[in-house]
Amino acid sequence: MEVLQVIDDLVCTRRVPGLGAVSLRVLQSEQGVVSVASDPVGAPVGKWVLVATGTAARLAMPDPLTMTDLAICGIVDHWEPAP
Amino acid sequence: MEVLQVIDDLVCTRRVPGLGAVSLRVLQSEQGVVSVASDPVGAPVGKWVLVATGTAARLAMPDPLTMTDLAICGIVDHWEPAP
Amino acid sequence: MEVLQVIDDLVCTRRVPGLGAVSLRVLQSEQGVVSVASDPVGAPVGKWVLVATGTAARLAMPDPLTMTDLAICGIVDHWEPAP
Amino acid sequence: MEVLQVIDDLVCTRRVPGLGAVSLRVLQSEQGVVSVASDPVGAPVGKWVLVATGTAARLAMPDPLTMTDLAICGIVDHWEPAP
Amino acid sequence: MEVLQVIDDLVCTRRVPGLGAVSLRVLQSEQGVVSVASDPVGAPVGKWVLVATGTAARLAMPDPLTMTDLAICGIVDHWEPAP
Repeated sequence: MEVLQVIDDLVCTRRVPGLGAVSLRVLQSEQGVVSVASDPVGAPVGKWVLVATGTAARLAMPDPLTMTDLAICGIVDHWEPAP
Repeated sequence: MEVLQVIDDLVCTRRVPGLGAVSLRVLQSEQGVVSVASDPVGAPVGKWVLVATGTAARLAMPDPLTMTDLAICGIVDHWEPAP
Repeated sequence: MEVLQVIDDLVCTRRVPGLGAVSLRVLQSEQGVVSVASDPVGAPVGKWVLVATGTAARLAMPDPLTMTDLAICGIVDHWEPAP
Repeated sequence: MEVLQVIDDLVCTRRVPGLGAVSLRVLQSEQGVVSVASDPVGAPVGKWVLVATGTAARLAMPDPLTMTDLAICGIVDHWEPAP
Repeated sequence: MEVLQVIDDLVCTRRVPGLGAVSLRVLQSEQGVVSVASDPVGAPVGKWVLVATGTAARLAMPDPLTMTDLAICGIVDHWEPAP
């Protein structure tokens, strides 16, 4: 798992059925790498969140058949980015 | 998941049966990394698309046994590449 | 698998149900890359641990449906970081 | 998926039973990264091939229990390496 | 799959039950990246071996529920590291 920061929402109107209506968040690592995660917890922009990949990501969603490979699975209480 | 740009179609006449007749797109990341995805949505060249890897990619296809490890799962409404 | 060093605990009060109450450790590679693992063995800060990813990570947990993609699966007896 | 070039065969006489007698090819990316794939299509040296990873690689093989994590799944009709 | 060189054994006395008593080898890539693999073939230090990741790694083990994400699946007859 990794700790990433929520920087935006992703609007993706045209999507495959397997993605359902799940919320999508744009995340950024401390090194500036950008990725997109499904969000079952409602994490606001600015928060540092814990994310999981692959099958673990699907186990984080209310419906484990949701077509995701990266999901937010928690909001970190306190995170100090490396200086 | 990641947001990548469609830059071309891939023609691959000789292929294994598991790949069926699915459309293949050449994608490029903002950093210039090139990959190939199966495309169940018909994404045109130039569009920024959301892609998923691994088992999630197969869940994006009409037939989940399609032999893919990267699939387009949505067309992003608006994407601003990092400057 | 990889050998990483435990550098901290991760406090994540708000989490998805699939993560249960498992202990989370912040790990660092010799190159300084930071990640987060579930810890079924109780590895103390400072120790070098063996970690596994993906489905293997879940097989390391007492409950294999734990939503993790990185788990500590052993404490290395002796590890000499590269000079 | 990715497009890689076949540069050699790999001879591996002593192997685990799960690998059977499948043909193995040494592949190289445009950036020079070397990997090894199982080859169900008989791709000759010099060709640019489409490869898939993980479970998708096994779905490309005649026997989906073949112990592979990278398989050639097609021969690309035409590929122009980036200049 | 990849070709890596065995450089050491890994002693890991305290381990999760899923790892059983399998032999662990420290491997190094030509670029110097270090990883740890389960070894069902008994590969001696110095040999170049073929390794597989993920579910394929488990299919290489006598017991496919072994908690590994990297397994040696063959000993390469001859390997010439890039100059």
